[in-house]
Amino acid sequence: MTRRSMHMVNSFDPSSGVDLGSADQALLERRHEVLGSMYRLFYSRPVHVARAAGVLLYDEEGTEYLDAYNNVPVVGHSNPRVHQAVSQQLQIVNSHTRYLSDDIVEYAERLTSLFPDHLTQAVFTCTGSEAVDLGVRIARHVTGRDGVIVTRHAYHGTTTTTAQLSPALGPNNPVPPEVVLIDAPDAVRGPEDPLAAFARSIDDAVDELRRRGFDLAVLVLDSIFASDGLQTGPTGLLRVAGERAHAHGGLYLADEVQAGFGRTGAAWWGFQRHEAVPDLVAMGKPMGNGLPIAGLVGRAEIFDRFGTDVRYFNTFGGSAVCVAAAQAVLSELVERELVQSSHVLGASLLESLRDLTAGDPGVEDVRGAGLFLTVELVEPGTTTPDAARADRVVNAMREQRVLISASGTYDNTLKIRPPLVFGAEHAPRLLEAFEQSLTT
Amino acid sequence: MTRRSMHMVNSFDPSSGVDLGSADQALLERRHEVLGSMYRLFYSRPVHVARAAGVLLYDEEGTEYLDAYNNVPVVGHSNPRVHQAVSQQLQIVNSHTRYLSDDIVEYAERLTSLFPDHLTQAVFTCTGSEAVDLGVRIARHVTGRDGVIVTRHAYHGTTTTTAQLSPALGPNNPVPPEVVLIDAPDAVRGPEDPLAAFARSIDDAVDELRRRGFDLAVLVLDSIFASDGLQTGPTGLLRVAGERAHAHGGLYLADEVQAGFGRTGAAWWGFQRHEAVPDLVAMGKPMGNGLPIAGLVGRAEIFDRFGTDVRYFNTFGGSAVCVAAAQAVLSELVERELVQSSHVLGASLLESLRDLTAGDPGVEDVRGAGLFLTVELVEPGTTTPDAARADRVVNAMREQRVLISASGTYDNTLKIRPPLVFGAEHAPRLLEAFEQSLTT
Repeated sequence: MTRRSMHMVNSFDPSSGVDLGSADQALLERRHEVLGSMYRLFYSRPVHVARAAGVLLYDEEGTEYLDAYNNVPVVGHSNPRVHQAVSQQLQIVNSHTRYLSDDIVEYAERLTSLFPDHLTQAVFTCTGSEAVDLGVRIARHVTGRDGVIVTRHAYHGTTTTTAQLSPALGPNNPVPPEVVLIDAPDAVRGPEDPLAAFARSIDDAVDELRRRGFDLAVLVLDSIFASDGLQTGPTGLLRVAGERAHAHGGLYLADEVQAGFGRTGAAWWGFQRHEAVPDLVAMGKPMGNGLPIAGLVGRAEIFDRFGTDVRYFNTFGGSAVCVAAAQAVLSELVERELVQSSHVLGASLLESLRDLTAGDPGVEDVRGAGLFLTVELVEPGTTTPDAARADRVVNAMREQRVLISASGTYDNTLKIRPPLVFGAEHAPRLLEAFEQSLTT
Repeated sequence: MTRRSMHMVNSFDPSSGVDLGSADQALLERRHEVLGSMYRLFYSRPVHVARAAGVLLYDEEGTEYLDAYNNVPVVGHSNPRVHQAVSQQLQIVNSHTRYLSDDIVEYAERLTSLFPDHLTQAVFTCTGSEAVDLGVRIARHVTGRDGVIVTRHAYHGTTTTTAQLSPALGPNNPVPPEVVLIDAPDAVRGPEDPLAAFARSIDDAVDELRRRGFDLAVLVLDSIFASDGLQTGPTGLLRVAGERAHAHGGLYLADEVQAGFGRTGAAWWGFQRHEAVPDLVAMGKPMGNGLPIAGLVGRAEIFDRFGTDVRYFNTFGGSAVCVAAAQAVLSELVERELVQSSHVLGASLLESLRDLTAGDPGVEDVRGAGLFLTVELVEPGTTTPDAARADRVVNAMREQRVLISASGTYDNTLKIRPPLVFGAEHAPRLLEAFEQSLTT
C-alpha cells in the first residue's frame, strides 16, 4: 500500500510549537496519550470549549465565540427543549425497539410526513455513517448488485463500507473496484452544461462498473455536495442523476446528513431543491441536536424486501431518549420556523458576502443554499485554488472568535454553516470578522 | 440469491392472531405502516413498555415485569446518577472531539486504566457495530490483509462489514470469501479437548483463507460466545486462540459488547477470564446505560499507524453527553461493587438453576459466567436441541412477568442476563417463574 501522509484541512499541528498555555498543553499531552493520533483538533490554536448556549461557545476563561460552523446543534447549543425532553425521558424509560412503544411510532409518522408520498417508511440508526451504510446494504440486497457511484471528493461516513465511498478521506483510504468516482459539479471549473455532463458521467461510470464486472446497485450523492466544495447548482441536477441511476436499474440514495432538516432553506431536504426522486434518504447530524440519532427513510417495498429476508436491529437506534430529542428538534424547527429562517437569512448572508468580496480578485465565487454558504478562494486572475488563504481566513476568524472552517476538493472553499437558530442579529459579527479576516 | 425465510428466535408473529387488545393492535398497525418489516418485537405477546426503574419494567396498565434480560441498562433502568449526569451536561455543552475538552480525556484515562498495560488507547463510536467495524478496518489497514475468522453462529453487528461477520443473521445475510467460519466451543456437543480443537480450527481456517487468496488480518471472537449459545469454557481458550492468530501474523480482536463491563463477574472484561491478550477490544451496549456510546481500546502502535495514515472522526462518538453517561456508569459499577455482585450473585443463581433442573431430562446443561446464564434444552436422553421448549419457557415466563429470551446456534439456550443491579432479593421471583415455566 502507498503510504502517503494524510492531510486534513484546518487541523491543528501538534508540532507547530504554537503556545497554548500550560494548562491546555498539559491536557493536549494527556489527550495524545490516551486518544492518540486518530483524533484531530480544529485550528492552529485549538479551541477549548467549556460551555455553549444558542450560537455562542465559551472557553475556560469565559471568552465568547460565535458559532458559524456547527450543524449538529441545529436548534442551538444547550437547547432547553431538547434538554427537557431528554431529561424527562431518562426518568421514564429508555429501551429498545423490541418492546412496543408509542414514541418511536409517533416520531416515524411525523418524520415521514415531511417527505414526498413515495417515501413512507423509516429505520433508525445512531449515526449518519450507519444510515448510509444500511442504505447501501439494502440497495445491494434488493438489486442483487454491488456497484456504487459517488463523487470524486465525496464523504459518506466512517464505517468500512461508507469509508470506501469517501475518497475525501485521502490517499490511504482505499476505494475498491466496485465503487466508481465521478466529477461533482464545480461552480468554478465545471463544464458548460453541468447537468448534461453529470448525466453522461453516470452513464460512463455504469459502463466502467460493467468493465470491472459489476452492475449499478446504487448512486449515492450528498444533496449539497458539501465535501466537493458545496456545489449548490444547477438545480435539477439531482433529479436527472436519479433518473440515470433508475435507467440503469440502480437505486438512488440521497445523503441528507449535511443537507437535511432545512439546512438548505428551500425545503426540508436538499433533494427537493432539485425536484429529485430518491429511493432512499439518509439523515443524521442535526436530527437529535447532538444526541446520537440518525436514520434512513425509503420506499416501503424496498424496506419490506430487506426486512423480510434479513431484518435490522440497532440496539440504540430509535431508543426512547434519542427519539425524545429528535421530537424536540422537529418541534423547534417547526414552531420557530427555522427552515424559513434558514432560507431568508441565508439569502441575506449570501448577498452580504458577495458585496463584501466584490472587489477581491482572490474570491472567485460566493454561493450557498440556506444557511450553508461558501466563499471560494483562488489565486487572482486564475481558477487555481488558494487553500493557504482559506486556512489563513479560517484561523484569523477563529482569533476574532468566530468559528467557521474550510473544505472542498481543493481545501479552498470556506465552510459557513451555523446552527439554524443563528439570527439576523448575529450576522454583523460574522460579516465583520469575515471582512477583517479576508484582508489579513 | 437463495431466498430462504429469515428466522429470529423469540419474535412476535403478527399473523399469529394473538389478541393484543384493541389499543396495542392499533399501535401495531401504525408501527408496521411506518417501520415496516425490518423491525421485530419480542414474545408471542409483545410487551408494551411504558416506564422502567431499576430491574422493573411497567406496561401501560401498570403491570410490573422483572427484567432478567436487558444488558444495556446495566446500572438500572432510569438510573438517577446517569439521568443527572446527562441532564447536567446537556445544559453545559455537547460538542464533538475537534475542540479540546477535559471530559473525554478523563474518561479515556479511566477506561484504559481498567485494561491490561499493553492496551493504552481508546477511540469512541456510538454503537458496538461501529466499534467492531472500526477494529476490523484498522486491523486490515495495519496488516495489509483482508481475512477474518469468526465463529459459525457469531453476531458482531449490523454495518455491512460486521453483518458479514454475523452468520447468526441467517441464510440471506451473505458471508464473503474473505471470512472463514470456525466452530465455537459447544458445552454439550463439543469435542473432547475443546481447547486443542479450537486452536486447530484456527490453523485450518488460515489455510482455508490462503486457498481463497487471503491472509489473516484479524480473529474476531465474542469473549462469552453469546450467540453461539453462551460458551463459558474452557477458560484459557481465548488465550490460545489469540496466540494462534498472532502466530499467523494476524491480530486478535476481543468483542466485549456482550461480555464487557463486568458482565461475566470474574473481571471487567471477558477476555480476562481466559487470560487472553487481545490487540483490540470492542465494547458497547452497557457503556452509557442506553446513551449511544461504544468504543475500541487497543495498542497504541496500532492506533497510531491507522491514525497517521487515515484518521477517524465520528460526529457523535465521544461527545460530551454520552461521555457523561459513561462516566456515571463507571462510577456506579465501581461504587456499588457491581462487578463483584455479578460474580457472587451469578454463582448463586447458577447453583439454584442447577438445583431446580437437576431432575429434568430435557435440561442438558446449565452454565454461566457472572450474571450471564443459560439453561440448554434438549430432547430427553439426546443432545438434540429443543428450541420449541425454549420458546415455550421464554413465553411462559413473560406471562409470569419475568423477562428473559433465548438464543444460540440452535435457539435452544435460554438467555438470562439481567441488569447488574439485579439483587439477591430479585432472585426468588426469577427462580420461581423459571420453575413454573419449565413445567408448562
